[in-house]
Amino acid sequence: MGKDYEKLAPKYRLLLGPGPVEVASRVLNVMSNPLYGHLDPKFLEITNETMKLLRYTFQTENQLTLPMSGTGSAGMETVMVNLLEEGDRAIICVNGVFGERMRDVASRCGAEVISVEAPWGKVIDPEDVRRAFKEAPGKVKLVGIVHAETSTGVKQPIEEISQIVKEHDALMVVDAVTSLGGVDLKIDEWGIDACYSGSQKALSCPPGLSPLTMGVKALEVIDNRKTKVQSWYLDLSMIKNYWSKERVYHHTAPINMIYALREALLMVYEEGLDERFRRHQLNSNAFVAGIEAMGMKMAVEEKEYRLPTLNAVKIPDEIDDYQVRSYLLDKYGIEIGGGLGDFKGKVWRVGLMGESSKRNNVILLLNALGDALMQQGYKVDFRLAIEAILDIYDI
Amino acid sequence: MGKDYEKLAPKYRLLLGPGPVEVASRVLNVMSNPLYGHLDPKFLEITNETMKLLRYTFQTENQLTLPMSGTGSAGMETVMVNLLEEGDRAIICVNGVFGERMRDVASRCGAEVISVEAPWGKVIDPEDVRRAFKEAPGKVKLVGIVHAETSTGVKQPIEEISQIVKEHDALMVVDAVTSLGGVDLKIDEWGIDACYSGSQKALSCPPGLSPLTMGVKALEVIDNRKTKVQSWYLDLSMIKNYWSKERVYHHTAPINMIYALREALLMVYEEGLDERFRRHQLNSNAFVAGIEAMGMKMAVEEKEYRLPTLNAVKIPDEIDDYQVRSYLLDKYGIEIGGGLGDFKGKVWRVGLMGESSKRNNVILLLNALGDALMQQGYKVDFRLAIEAILDIYDI
Repeated sequence: MGKDYEKLAPKYRLLLGPGPVEVASRVLNVMSNPLYGHLDPKFLEITNETMKLLRYTFQTENQLTLPMSGTGSAGMETVMVNLLEEGDRAIICVNGVFGERMRDVASRCGAEVISVEAPWGKVIDPEDVRRAFKEAPGKVKLVGIVHAETSTGVKQPIEEISQIVKEHDALMVVDAVTSLGGVDLKIDEWGIDACYSGSQKALSCPPGLSPLTMGVKALEVIDNRKTKVQSWYLDLSMIKNYWSKERVYHHTAPINMIYALREALLMVYEEGLDERFRRHQLNSNAFVAGIEAMGMKMAVEEKEYRLPTLNAVKIPDEIDDYQVRSYLLDKYGIEIGGGLGDFKGKVWRVGLMGESSKRNNVILLLNALGDALMQQGYKVDFRLAIEAILDIYDI
Repeated sequence: MGKDYEKLAPKYRLLLGPGPVEVASRVLNVMSNPLYGHLDPKFLEITNETMKLLRYTFQTENQLTLPMSGTGSAGMETVMVNLLEEGDRAIICVNGVFGERMRDVASRCGAEVISVEAPWGKVIDPEDVRRAFKEAPGKVKLVGIVHAETSTGVKQPIEEISQIVKEHDALMVVDAVTSLGGVDLKIDEWGIDACYSGSQKALSCPPGLSPLTMGVKALEVIDNRKTKVQSWYLDLSMIKNYWSKERVYHHTAPINMIYALREALLMVYEEGLDERFRRHQLNSNAFVAGIEAMGMKMAVEEKEYRLPTLNAVKIPDEIDDYQVRSYLLDKYGIEIGGGLGDFKGKVWRVGLMGESSKRNNVILLLNALGDALMQQGYKVDFRLAIEAILDIYDI
């Protein structure tokens, strides 16, 4: 150690925020393996397995299914810069921070962006998408929508909107950062042309990679571009040649992160998607039951539109947001997320994803949250909450 | 394990290619630490230390000195997309693959690019840069040049060109992917306005991060942009607010990779830059002496322009490139790099960087290379080579 620096020794944390979430020790441990070169035949086997496991997780046969070398937002940008060219028209659905971000990214590609909006905490209405197509002054190239809005906890139904998009011969682009591996997402069956996610959410891998998949129709659009993709780093026409039989050098793949992603995906595969979705839903149900028994409310009113992975709780009026979160962190080592954008100071965002989605975590958090609230004079009957949880778990 | 997949257990490799290179076990091990949230006060301390250590390594006081969440090419793109706007004029120096890449990236920003070229294996002549300024039809915004051309092994002198750039009130942009931490690089003293590198070269960290530094003059250019940066993911006007006191959320920082970078930088700091540069030069000198004693030649003829980090060896006429590299990998577990672009099939690229820059590795590689060459009937007197090496090490 340089005398000015201490040995890295992270304090205890239980990560129950919007991500990163808990990572299994077997995933953490594989990162410490020595490196292969990024063109080593043995490493290429690992990349092939990673793509295969990603196809399983995305429920797709898409050949182009790979992790981009950046976080979820890099995945969002990859889809937009590759599919859009200057002057193209895109419909972007906005009901939270990540819809806003998608609109920003699409407009930076020089696209004409038509917004379809819904209030925060509500889903996008398919009829509004239909109307946007009707009112558009000409051909719309793609529709972008967020499946799991991390800023509000809304789960967006995809199939009906995808159908409308197909009728207008546009591409269906889905942000699945906070759903992949935790909430059902059927790329092929639902007709999604391009989709991206993040490694640090329901896949329970450290942050740094963005799994992405693109169907044949999206690839044709890329093949027929008139101009170069504005980003060299995210240019799929080159990147796909590394993640294929050709193995043409583009940039140096983040070896150890790919070790971690492969291991995290293996855990998804071993658990099985159905069981995994069931587990996420069950733990979320228990958490919500506890919150409601404690007299609080979820930010998303309609049950069927609540994400099990990201649970947004309305902060009671008299409660100080920051004090509660600091208390949880300092006294219990528990991290939950604050609100973003319109929801800043108004909601807590509780991530129950991947390794964080566990019965013990639900009980621990509700107990700690109850304690924090009582510190501010809020009355909590924790026995009622526990009973509500146990009912859900059928214990 | 899913029954179709085996436990990850990488085979023995000694990485002596263009990167990734060997990573110390203490750097590999810190990656397995549990995660902090990316806004956790304790994690922010780690980011502050990382910035401080990066400033030491870059020899700069620049406030904006941070790791971008992508590989070295993402660093290149970050500099270009932030500094250039549609219609700006840039002089890009090209004498290898990474100069070509910089030209490509700059042109994707809509800039008018003026190329200053030199043959592969040669340095850029400052007089050619001076002439390019003279002949440019108007104001030139920046000059981009590669300090350490990974495709050829050329070390480019920076100071004289930087002086010319200053005289014309343009920004000096330097690619230091294969020099930072292995070859002297004085950001402030040499008047470099923007510089980027990669984590997996002389810093001996796994790939996935791109250290970057920008001076006040470059930041002013960003502050005075007329248009939005075309990349949301690489937009420094937002990213700098996360890496500052404000700590505004932009994207989720790759926590474990930053653990690793901090540890790798700590090793640079403990060794000291001067000692580190001396070590890299010494091991390179020994390697070159061995190569020449074996009757081979370096791709860069002039000694003073050879990079100690990336040693490009001319492949003897009668020798099959691919067979030699496969033999080294299969029989010795040693990876060296093949040639890129114009040098494909013509040179081997031997990385002696960071943890890979060691006396034992020089001896091992020369021995293995001698064996591989003899397999193809090339005559090697290995005793001569060993004597030449020992002379350099003064043993």
